[in-house]
Amino acid sequence: MDNKYAVILGNLGNTCDRFLSSGYKEQLDKATMLKQASSINRVTGIELVGTWDIDESNVGEMKALLQDNNLQCASIIPDQFSQKRWGKGTFAAPDKAVRDAAVAEIKKSIDIAVEMECDMLNLWPGQDGFDYPLCANYIEEREWFVEGVRECAEYALKKNVKLALEYKIKEPRTHSYLARVSDTIFVVNQVGLDNVGVCIDTGHAFMAYENVGESIALLKMAGDKLFHMHFNDNYNAWDDDMIVGSIRLVEYFEILYWLRKTGYNRWYSMDQYPYREDGYGAIRSSVLYLQKMEAILNSVGMERVAELVARRDPIATSDFIRENLIK
Amino acid sequence: MDNKYAVILGNLGNTCDRFLSSGYKEQLDKATMLKQASSINRVTGIELVGTWDIDESNVGEMKALLQDNNLQCASIIPDQFSQKRWGKGTFAAPDKAVRDAAVAEIKKSIDIAVEMECDMLNLWPGQDGFDYPLCANYIEEREWFVEGVRECAEYALKKNVKLALEYKIKEPRTHSYLARVSDTIFVVNQVGLDNVGVCIDTGHAFMAYENVGESIALLKMAGDKLFHMHFNDNYNAWDDDMIVGSIRLVEYFEILYWLRKTGYNRWYSMDQYPYREDGYGAIRSSVLYLQKMEAILNSVGMERVAELVARRDPIATSDFIRENLIK
Amino acid sequence: MDNKYAVILGNLGNTCDRFLSSGYKEQLDKATMLKQASSINRVTGIELVGTWDIDESNVGEMKALLQDNNLQCASIIPDQFSQKRWGKGTFAAPDKAVRDAAVAEIKKSIDIAVEMECDMLNLWPGQDGFDYPLCANYIEEREWFVEGVRECAEYALKKNVKLALEYKIKEPRTHSYLARVSDTIFVVNQVGLDNVGVCIDTGHAFMAYENVGESIALLKMAGDKLFHMHFNDNYNAWDDDMIVGSIRLVEYFEILYWLRKTGYNRWYSMDQYPYREDGYGAIRSSVLYLQKMEAILNSVGMERVAELVARRDPIATSDFIRENLIK
Amino acid sequence: MDNKYAVILGNLGNTCDRFLSSGYKEQLDKATMLKQASSINRVTGIELVGTWDIDESNVGEMKALLQDNNLQCASIIPDQFSQKRWGKGTFAAPDKAVRDAAVAEIKKSIDIAVEMECDMLNLWPGQDGFDYPLCANYIEEREWFVEGVRECAEYALKKNVKLALEYKIKEPRTHSYLARVSDTIFVVNQVGLDNVGVCIDTGHAFMAYENVGESIALLKMAGDKLFHMHFNDNYNAWDDDMIVGSIRLVEYFEILYWLRKTGYNRWYSMDQYPYREDGYGAIRSSVLYLQKMEAILNSVGMERVAELVARRDPIATSDFIRENLIK
Repeated sequence: MDNKYAVILGNLGNTCDRFLSSGYKEQLDKATMLKQASSINRVTGIELVGTWDIDESNVGEMKALLQDNNLQCASIIPDQFSQKRWGKGTFAAPDKAVRDAAVAEIKKSIDIAVEMECDMLNLWPGQDGFDYPLCANYIEEREWFVEGVRECAEYALKKNVKLALEYKIKEPRTHSYLARVSDTIFVVNQVGLDNVGVCIDTGHAFMAYENVGESIALLKMAGDKLFHMHFNDNYNAWDDDMIVGSIRLVEYFEILYWLRKTGYNRWYSMDQYPYREDGYGAIRSSVLYLQKMEAILNSVGMERVAELVARRDPIATSDFIRENLIK
Repeated sequence: MDNKYAVILGNLGNTCDRFLSSGYKEQLDKATMLKQASSINRVTGIELVGTWDIDESNVGEMKALLQDNNLQCASIIPDQFSQKRWGKGTFAAPDKAVRDAAVAEIKKSIDIAVEMECDMLNLWPGQDGFDYPLCANYIEEREWFVEGVRECAEYALKKNVKLALEYKIKEPRTHSYLARVSDTIFVVNQVGLDNVGVCIDTGHAFMAYENVGESIALLKMAGDKLFHMHFNDNYNAWDDDMIVGSIRLVEYFEILYWLRKTGYNRWYSMDQYPYREDGYGAIRSSVLYLQKMEAILNSVGMERVAELVARRDPIATSDFIRENLIK
Repeated sequence: MDNKYAVILGNLGNTCDRFLSSGYKEQLDKATMLKQASSINRVTGIELVGTWDIDESNVGEMKALLQDNNLQCASIIPDQFSQKRWGKGTFAAPDKAVRDAAVAEIKKSIDIAVEMECDMLNLWPGQDGFDYPLCANYIEEREWFVEGVRECAEYALKKNVKLALEYKIKEPRTHSYLARVSDTIFVVNQVGLDNVGVCIDTGHAFMAYENVGESIALLKMAGDKLFHMHFNDNYNAWDDDMIVGSIRLVEYFEILYWLRKTGYNRWYSMDQYPYREDGYGAIRSSVLYLQKMEAILNSVGMERVAELVARRDPIATSDFIRENLIK
Repeated sequence: MDNKYAVILGNLGNTCDRFLSSGYKEQLDKATMLKQASSINRVTGIELVGTWDIDESNVGEMKALLQDNNLQCASIIPDQFSQKRWGKGTFAAPDKAVRDAAVAEIKKSIDIAVEMECDMLNLWPGQDGFDYPLCANYIEEREWFVEGVRECAEYALKKNVKLALEYKIKEPRTHSYLARVSDTIFVVNQVGLDNVGVCIDTGHAFMAYENVGESIALLKMAGDKLFHMHFNDNYNAWDDDMIVGSIRLVEYFEILYWLRKTGYNRWYSMDQYPYREDGYGAIRSSVLYLQKMEAILNSVGMERVAELVARRDPIATSDFIRENLIK
């Protein structure tokens, strides 16, 4: 019944921005980062990024490292963003050779997932979109996109692997094809396979002005399509990838309520960019924050929150916040 | 083959804001406003708002007025926003009596539409949504919403009337259930009836960071679901309801291209809030601006724009802008 | 040493939006609203809006009502927004007669303030700004603006009344001349009189992407220019005027810290728009929330927060949040 | 009387983002990029970035290269952003040794400017700011900031070099100390030296919801403090660094009007990030676009625009746009 916590491995290392491609910190080796992850209270899962963390050459080594640290592979995130060839898209790239290469990359990642005893790929096709008006044939590119996802999904289905599509309204392109939750449901329905669902990154949703509780509810209504969760915080205007709870409060509590209410029992995974902060400390803080929210939810009880929500009264909700969330 | 232009009647009159409920201008009578509308080059349609412009008591009179001015009724917009009873929602109101009243109001508007020889209702359920976190049961309310729309749509189907659902990310609620184009496609699919589609208000889409060309393409892919278009401009952050072309340029040209490319042959209707400006002048400016864009599109030709889009090259597009759009 | 709490009277009554000029609730009479205000824990001040709440005709009556309820007049907010004649500006209106009328209105409000034994006018010149590009002579209008404020300030100086200029990035105009804190400091410096300072409305600052703690610090550096504080919450993108603490947490705690650290000892006043909620409940919730933050600040102590801030470490701050702010 | 055009050298080369630190294109050598720049119609100036383009070791070589291409050095942009040591700030870094190093770096750049016969440094202290609430002592850091700028400015004054402070609301920090135009005027006034002024980057201003025409007017009123201009376009929500005129139109025309009206006679310099596009083509498109606007302004005449602005009538302005800006 307890929530399961995970971490994207690279969050613990160095992260760069467009002005300082070396990043602001020193890079740690993977063994150290895995040890750090496993030392955080109740963290039992790790997400691995293709190219950066894992490829065919180090699967065995990585599997051993995870076992040594009592960690499961929560997901593989195939590399669809960190190679020059993906610069104009992966599934929706104008060049057919690139589209084929993208599908091949995903299939390879599916095989790796199977070796890692992991049943989930988290796809973030952030390069699929466009930057300028009058520079894309939206219908053609979206058709390519759906074809690519479908081919991967059919392959994954045979291997008992699920695909979670992670949406984000923009960056690195000014407009992404998987922009918001409903855009992603639309694509999931176009693909039409059971093993294709959605990953909500809370920060991506916040920057698109979504109420994440509602997004979770929408995915429930779309046929239990929430497959994965990434957590971080921001100021609503950009994917700042900050520590959970550094800005907002009530929305996180609401998210935990809706996750439980809709029967979500998969990973609560941390996805941040601690550019200048200690990665381990930043990730640990996020996990502990969510565990505080989880404890409050346990203590208050689901039924009492359901009754509150049913009152639809901001004043009752404010009373609840002061009495149950704030010290 | 030419675009058909329409106007929402109230745009020509007085408009208010939350600080000055009387509005900044004098109110004109409907006969004067209709005369003004019909005097704008190629405007042949009028949209009428329930309560404000039309109800059972003045249908005959309004029909005569439109005929006198050679105007068609382009759509009826039922009143789902300007009565106290709709304050907490219409289709999704917590109170069943209110939900029933909302459905009754729409049915009444369908009857009025039939009398006005109009085949389109434009629904803007702006009160259906929520303001605060932890104050709504999203699943329950969205189910009510779909039930309400379906009941109206079934009634409308018998009368050969279509329903266009107009989305808007927020205002008057901080969050609307019909927030973006894909949220609306999701609801259209839940309802599952042929006569239910979508109205894009360009300003609503801009404030949700949509590329409207892409939104039009999405509705094409969703099964020819674009039923209606409202035009206005803004600064991307709020529904400023400004004169078309007062800010942006390229996106409007792209919109006209995609409307034609996807076979849209319905109304190009003006929806603005000229708070402090002369209403007639503001609406006329918007119509003339769109007609300029239409003329450029005619002169350049669809094929040349298709070739440009296929190049996916922002530099080629910039050259095109300087050579074909700018003086 | 304790914070002093106040309320804008109209917050307790009915509020309207642009779609429903009657508002969603019933209007209460002023005596009832004053009674409600005085019943909220530690509320001892009331802000009165010109025209809406007070004018020459009811000063005596209002003074008696406040005394009956043991309330002080915290400020007068002259009416610069709710009359048709202010539609194109007050201090910066193109028409000199309107500019003169605006100055006369403020002077009248200064006299009323004196009668009410109140030493503060809160000026919100929300109509001074512009909507469209290429539609204003910014230099000329800003010069008019400064002249108008200076004339009012000289009059106020003789009566020992202060003027607090309240900024807001937009609404009702798409662009205001008093847009952000530093824009307002610029105008305060142009006016160059000791009795002219600034009012921070937290929501206005949030929607301009300000960190309000920093804004308070800036006003300290500008020569102790923070004269007044209005409190409410929002989603960062618009002036939603919501209950304090319904969204964010950490920023409010930081605001209270900086207010105390910079020696602010004036009113903590509530400024909200409870469109659909009970006004009394909404205002009371905000006051109680701020008092919770005040109590935590008292208990933690200023020095410990100063030490935390000096560490400049988001992880230490996250630990602090979990240990001291969250239950 | 003609506008003078310049280019930031690196815009013509490769640019990276946080996901692909290698960038999406191949890097060109500096000789090629300079040749490209000089081949663009009427481009006669080049801005050079410290570390990336120029340091003590290659001044002579760079000077020769510029002369070979008939290019002037329009400004030096000292490196305050692309070294690990600047990660927590330069002028406002918590570590005094870093602050001293930053001042030394600027002084070194002043000497380089003198050697390059350039009278302008463009300072972009993008690392000076903060990311999280409750993690900075705004007063102390802002005092450090002003001290640092003043020390550099005093040194520059002796060498007849000006400093243009470039503001940006965020990125790479979530909050910058030089956030908006008025924040920068505040700092310029704190420094209090004649050779310190402001650089407007149009995209930075757009993302802060500024009307750039108004920002230019403000700098005129602040005592002729506009020292430099950077041009690019975006969608208002982020520093997309796109080709000028790819989105908006009217605002650029207004900018050119106000630049001329306020007597600005310095560089019109291009500052973009053509991540995936040909750099030369992107920069050239921007220059040609601005030259189109310049030609229209010449043809219409300043007086007619002044009359239009004085009318303050969005409808007259819309007519003007259709007749004079659009084909």
